Parts: sequence; structure tokens; C-alpha cells
Amino acid sequence: MSQAQQAAKAAPQRTAITPTRAENFPEWYQSVVKAADMAENSPVRGAMVIKPYGYGVWEQIQRALDDKIKEEGVQNAYFPLLIPLSFISREAEHVDGFAKECAVVTHHRLEMGSEGKLVPSPSAELEEPFVIRPTSETIIGDSMSKWVQSYRDLPLLLNQWCNVMRWEMRTRLFLRTSEFLWQEGHNAFETAEQAEADARKMLEVYRSLYVDFLAMSAFCGEKTADERFPGAVHTYTIESMMQDGKSLQAATSHNLGQNFAKSCQIKFQGRDGNEHFAHTTSWGLSTRSIGGLIMTHGDDDGLRMPPRIAPIQVMILPITKNDDGAAAVIEYAQKIAAQLKAIGVRVSIDLSDQRAPDKMWSAIKKGIPLRVEVGGREVEEGKLTHTCRDLGRDSKTSCTVAEFVGSVKFILDDIHGRMYQASHDFSRSRIVECQSSAAVKEYFETAQDVGFAKMPVELLQDEALNAYRKENALTTRCMPFEDEGRMVLVGKAY
Amino acid sequence: MSQAQQAAKAAPQRTAITPTRAENFPEWYQSVVKAADMAENSPVRGAMVIKPYGYGVWEQIQRALDDKIKEEGVQNAYFPLLIPLSFISREAEHVDGFAKECAVVTHHRLEMGSEGKLVPSPSAELEEPFVIRPTSETIIGDSMSKWVQSYRDLPLLLNQWCNVMRWEMRTRLFLRTSEFLWQEGHNAFETAEQAEADARKMLEVYRSLYVDFLAMSAFCGEKTADERFPGAVHTYTIESMMQDGKSLQAATSHNLGQNFAKSCQIKFQGRDGNEHFAHTTSWGLSTRSIGGLIMTHGDDDGLRMPPRIAPIQVMILPITKNDDGAAAVIEYAQKIAAQLKAIGVRVSIDLSDQRAPDKMWSAIKKGIPLRVEVGGREVEEGKLTHTCRDLGRDSKTSCTVAEFVGSVKFILDDIHGRMYQASHDFSRSRIVECQSSAAVKEYFETAQDVGFAKMPVELLQDEALNAYRKENALTTRCMPFEDEGRMVLVGKAY
Repeated sequence: MSQAQQAAKAAPQRTAITPTRAENFPEWYQSVVKAADMAENSPVRGAMVIKPYGYGVWEQIQRALDDKIKEEGVQNAYFPLLIPLSFISREAEHVDGFAKECAVVTHHRLEMGSEGKLVPSPSAELEEPFVIRPTSETIIGDSMSKWVQSYRDLPLLLNQWCNVMRWEMRTRLFLRTSEFLWQEGHNAFETAEQAEADARKMLEVYRSLYVDFLAMSAFCGEKTADERFPGAVHTYTIESMMQDGKSLQAATSHNLGQNFAKSCQIKFQGRDGNEHFAHTTSWGLSTRSIGGLIMTHGDDDGLRMPPRIAPIQVMILPITKNDDGAAAVIEYAQKIAAQLKAIGVRVSIDLSDQRAPDKMWSAIKKGIPLRVEVGGREVEEGKLTHTCRDLGRDSKTSCTVAEFVGSVKFILDDIHGRMYQASHDFSRSRIVECQSSAAVKEYFETAQDVGFAKMPVELLQDEALNAYRKENALTTRCMPFEDEGRMVLVGKAY
Repeated sequence: MSQAQQAAKAAPQRTAITPTRAENFPEWYQSVVKAADMAENSPVRGAMVIKPYGYGVWEQIQRALDDKIKEEGVQNAYFPLLIPLSFISREAEHVDGFAKECAVVTHHRLEMGSEGKLVPSPSAELEEPFVIRPTSETIIGDSMSKWVQSYRDLPLLLNQWCNVMRWEMRTRLFLRTSEFLWQEGHNAFETAEQAEADARKMLEVYRSLYVDFLAMSAFCGEKTADERFPGAVHTYTIESMMQDGKSLQAATSHNLGQNFAKSCQIKFQGRDGNEHFAHTTSWGLSTRSIGGLIMTHGDDDGLRMPPRIAPIQVMILPITKNDDGAAAVIEYAQKIAAQLKAIGVRVSIDLSDQRAPDKMWSAIKKGIPLRVEVGGREVEEGKLTHTCRDLGRDSKTSCTVAEFVGSVKFILDDIHGRMYQASHDFSRSRIVECQSSAAVKEYFETAQDVGFAKMPVELLQDEALNAYRKENALTTRCMPFEDEGRMVLVGKAY
């Protein structure tokens, strides 16, 4: 029985989210996204609307990651959305890999058609169509080829925050959408060693974002050849295990060798006076990470937001039973909020006209890490009552305002620590080492709580096992760094 | 003779930028953008590459403006890039206005064509084409129509930072590009009065950004009917006068009345129990603002960056004549930089292997507000030498490091103050009040330093004057608030 199943059985009380995780994980996910008001489907097939609370999470992730990226000496820039078809064609593997399913711009004007509807104007057909960037290696490579002349121009370290588009047939909010938001880094170096070190360093940047901000387990390693980014020499990945035992590819970092430098003509005069191709890397993290944090931390009452990226870390709920005391309670709440803001805590007061229990449930479903209740008695006593989202509804603590302000950052850090530990312990408990093909098959066919099988890389040569894996959508997730290339994790993936 | 012409005549020394402003303003502009390494044309016609230094300015503008927008209670969100044609068609005026020149997506897949080139796959033609958003009123209106049910859901205040695209034939870096970056705010209200107040309030937000951060003159007022945003009831604008006397429409804020609410079906149950259409506003500011600051503040030596949005406020130039003392000088520079960073100053050290004069000229052309030189003597004496970009190369001041750290924020504020005053004084000096059509014509035909004619709004009915204005590309810029609708500014515009 899974953790979630056990929890469902043990809990007699009704849950805020139906179905529960144990009942139907994919539907539970959709319900949590909806209940937390994070995002919804749009009238444009496959594209989502990211609602304010969901976008607030992305802003926090952006801020944390952007700081880390800049600490590595990378500069932000912006490159065109549209990519000429001829650019896409340059890198053969890239084209075969994934560049074909994309939005194609063929006209630059509309006109009123015969049926009184707007149609693309036949006189405004483009000589060369464009695609909306699925990723920007080729167009950034074109700029790099102009900016890099000598080894003195290297390293060239660039990043952009932007939207990208890949025409997806089956989409799910945050996890797989036609349009999504991401950052894509593109670095160029003098030597192969530098590029290799950079690809691994940027993966480490992602690992620390996942562990230190999103409180998520992160398996770091290299992709097997069949799962590599088209055109890459090495692809490194962060895989994170979701509560249903499936893997989310949470971020990737590619050592592209000289492949893109050759197709984009990124050449430089080296220290030896000769012309060389640069060695490049690319690395990206997207709004998919938000789907990952929901599937990692959510419970049957809704989202649980990791405190360090929570748009609202503390929600104050004024409990006002009659209109008499309401003004005093709200004033009290505002004073507490001002003190928290002054020490850099992201705080909000629920001033809606909902009833007290509805305010509480709204904060629970949104996963606000800390709820603070204040009512008439608290005002009189100079106290407040706080509850940690991750400890459940019965974990109320009463203390003075001064005590709370003095300890709130520690409380938030503790919540982060517990959430990370839970994700880490859960994912480790779901990995089973399998030394033979038979053991791998047995694991996936009999284990109650399937996660990853960890098997020797030699088994990748076992064609019968490969056929079995293909049939059952069991892909290689990564060869963990800690096993130095000897082992590979296999499992289902988003 | 213009200020620029006078400056050119008075200065015997050579300038860093050729041609000068007086010689050829449009070419001077391109040279400044290039010399400061801000942006360049891309292989995609009409789209630019925003280089790191230019993007750094945009990041500063974003931060300043985003804070102001959030202070007004507006929340950020994200809506789809692609807009169904049927949405565009809904608002008739909107379509006639400008929605036709846009990028049209007609296919969702590429395939290898007969000539070995990628082509749009005929089997993947979309049933309904999409356009890349030229602006998002219609798609955001669609979401608003779902989110707004009751007056309790209002006001609904939304903003998004994104890229947009309008197919432009004649483009210029930052000023007019097919793709550009902006923020677009979309607010919905219960009453007409609220929407009107909001449209004016958001214009005030832009005014304070221009004056308090970009140090630019800002004429605030209403657009005449012919210059209104398609579908708007009132369009308010910030116009800023560039050094060549032309106007830049720097930001706009629209009261859309119920027009978009009707076409998008944004309805709510009012306090009276009846169904009403919402009253909406929209307001935007784009990367065009960067072109404006260049044309406002640049001089014949290059850019002058307003300190509050300068990506680098202080550039430290280590002057090392021989390798012996170099390490000590660089260490000294790093200590100064650390002290400045600690008090929130954006500081950089030029560690390139350029010669000292080249480092100085590079900082001048990039418009770094404050340059700090340190050499062997400064290290010995515990001093430094600093120069304000706006006061010219001879304005060197020597002081101790402690004195500098203690006063640097005041020095930067002084630079801001002088730059704003210069822009303000210049633009006021170029406005001439003309009470008759003849006076307007005389002004534009004989004045040495043309700027804006300020004329009574009644003259908009003068058909002969209108014909003359049309011939000479003299458009109405705005009816300034200070004249309460009686007067209108007329001039050339970007």
C-alpha cells in the first residue's frame, strides 16, 4: 500500500480534494491546480492561462534562479521569437529530433475574406516561412558566430527568459503545454573541458534550486544515448520522483560539443593562431517545475507550497464574529503584517467576506505554508494562533506577536526542511536495485509501490528487456553521477 | 541653431560618435546603439537582438515599473501567445485599426520537401489560423468573461510581461520593431467612473517612471480622436520630446469603456441584481522606452544612462602601468566595489586588457553615470578619482574611499536631477503657442529648432491646416491635461 493509500485509509475526515491521490492521481492533480487557482486551459488548444497565483510561483522561481545564474557570470539577453526555416535545417540531428512539430508562420497580413471572416492574405505570403522557437540554439548560435572572433571573446555566457512553443497533441497544465515559459542558457567556450565542466556546473545550479528552494528530491545524472537532446554529446538531467512513483525530467543541461558551433559557424582564432570551432552548452528549466512541485508536495487537501518560493508565506485570517470587533481585529492583523513585511516575509491578509472556515480552507488548498488566526481574544491578549500547512489542521500554536515575529523565519525554514526530507525519503524508498533483466521485470510487475529500478548499464544491451520496456513505457531516466556510469534508473515518466 | 549644433561648433575636440547629432540625428542614433553595445538587427526581418547591456536596461525598467504596478494592487499573470482569428474579428474597430498586419500561424508541422528543404506540412494545416498577439485585449477579455460573475469579482486587475508582434515594414532598433517586449495591463471595473480614474492613474504611474527613473520630460494628456487606440473611448498618453524636436509616444493608457466588455462578454451581476457589462482599461509600456532614453540623453560621445535604471552605475577603471603594481590596484578596486555593493550600488570593474584610455572611452560610450579611476598613487593615498558622465571628461574629483562611499548615492541623485532638468528645459524651450492656422504653418516653416506647436483644439476643424499637417507628417501628440482640453500639441513623431 502506498503512503497515499495508507493516508487515505487512516483519515476518516473528508478531504478538500476529490478524488484523492490514491483514488486517481492524474485527476487529483487537475483538481489541486484548480482548487489552488494556479492555471487553466485556454481557448488556444494546448496553451494554458497561468493565473496570478500560479504566475506568482513562477516569479519566485525566476528570482531565485536568475540570481544563481548571474552569480555564475551569465548575462541575460533577448533573441527573436521567430526562427527562419533555413536555420532549423542546419543541424540534421536537431531536425530529426523534435524540431518538426512546431507552429509555422506563413503570412504577415490578414484580410477580410469572402465570407466576412478574416483570412491570411494571399498577397502576404512569406518567401521563407518562420517557426516559433521550440528552443533557440540555432538563432542564438547565429549571433554567437558574429560576436565570437578570438579566444578573447570566450567564454560567452548568455541566458534568456522567454516563451517557447512545441506543438503537443496531449497536454496537461504545467507538465506539457504547447506554449511554455522557461529560461534557456547558451554558453560558448574555448575548450571541450570547459564546456563539459559548464554543463555539469549548470546542472548543479538546477539541483540547488530544486533542493534549496522547491524542497524536491533531485536525482542527478547523465541521460542514456537514446534520451539525449538532439545534437548533444552529453545530456545531464535532474529527475525528480513524483508521489505516484513516476519521474519528472525537471531540468536538463547539454554539452553540445562542437556540433552546433559547426552548424552555426561559431569560430574563433585560438591562442595558437589557428581557427577553431567553439564548444557550446545549453541548459533550461521551465514552468514544468511548477507541475513538479505540485505532484511532489500536494496532499489530499490541496497544494503545499515550499516556503522559499511561496508567493504568500504567511496568510493572516482575521476571525470576526460580529461587526463590532471587526475593525480592531483587522487593524491588529495589519500591524502584524507590517512587522512581517519589514523583515522580508511575504504576507497577505484575507480580507474577503468569506466565513472563517472558508478562509481557512482557501489557504489550505493554496498551500500557504503558515496560517495565522487572529480574533477578538488574540487582540486582547496580544497573541496569535499559527498553524503549519504541512503539520495538519490540529497543529495550532499560540504565542505572542513578538515571539512569532522573532521565530517566523525559523518556522518557515523548518517547514522547508520537513518537506524536503519527506520528498527525499519517499523517493529513496521507491528505488530498488535489480541486477538482472528478470529482476527488473519482476519489480515492475509485482511491486506494490513502483518507482525506479536501478539496474546495471549492461542491461541496456538486452533486446528482450528493451522490448519489454518499450511496451510498458519504462524509459531510462538517468545514469546517476554517484554510480559513476555503472547503473541506470528506469521508470515511467511524465 | 540647436543645442546640439551649438555644442558641435563649440567643441574643437573629436567626438566618439560619428556622425554627431547635429550632422545626422538618425545615423547618430544607430551609432550610439552600436557603440554602447545595446542591440543589433537580427536575421529575422524587423526583429532585433537585445544584447546584454541593452537587456540590462530593460531589466531595471521592469523592476522599477513592476514594483509600481504591484503597489496599485495589480497581479501579474500569463496568457497565450497565439490568438484565434475569430477573437480578433470580434471588435470591429480593433480590426480596422491595426490588427491586420500581424504574423499568421497556419501550420503545426514541418516536413522535408521535395527539394530537400523543410516546408510546412500540407497535412498539418490548422482549421482556424492563429495570429501572434499584437496586443492581448481579446484573449485576456475571454478569460475575464469567465472569471467575472458578480460585482464582488471586481475590480479585476491583471498585467503581463511578454513579447508581442506587429508586422512593421520600416523598423529601427528599439523604436519600431516587429517583435518587441512590453507589459500590458488589463483592468476591469464595475463603473465607468472607476475605469476612467484607473486609466488616468496608470498614466500617472508611467509619468513617474519616466520622470523619476528615466529622467525624461513627459507631456501627459489625451489623444485626439484620430490618434486613439482602436476601440478606446479615451486614450491617454505620455509624449516625450527627443533632442531632434520629434515626439516619442512613450506609454499609453486606454479607457475602453464597455466596448471590449461587450465584444468579449465580460458581464457581471450588479448590486442591483441586474446584469451589466464591465468597464475596462488597458495600458502598456515597451522596449521603445529604451530608444527614448537614448534619444533624450545621448550626446556626441555616446549614451548617457540615467543612474536609477543604469545596469552599471559605477564603473571602476584600474589604471595599471606595469605588471608590478597591477595586483595591488585590482585588489584595491575590488575592495571599493565590495563597499559599494554592500550599500546597493550597481558597480563593475573593467578587468579587460584594454589600455586605460580605451577603458575610459568604453565607459563613456556606454554612458556609465560615474567612472572611478584607481592607480598606484590612489592605492598609496587611500584615494580615488571620479568623473560624472554628464559633466564631461574634465570634471574629475579626487577624494578618499570613505568620502566617496558616503556620498555616492547623492552624486548619483545629482546626476539624475541634472539629466531630468536638462530634458525638461530643452523640451519646454521647444514649444511655441500658435493661436491661428497661419501661425502654426509659419512656425513649422521658419523656426530653426522645431518642436511642438501648441494650438487651440478648434484648429483641428481647419481642413486646410489638416491637409498641410498631413502633407508634412505633423500629427497631434496630445491635449495636455494642464490645458484642460483647450489646447493640443502638434509635431513630428517617431
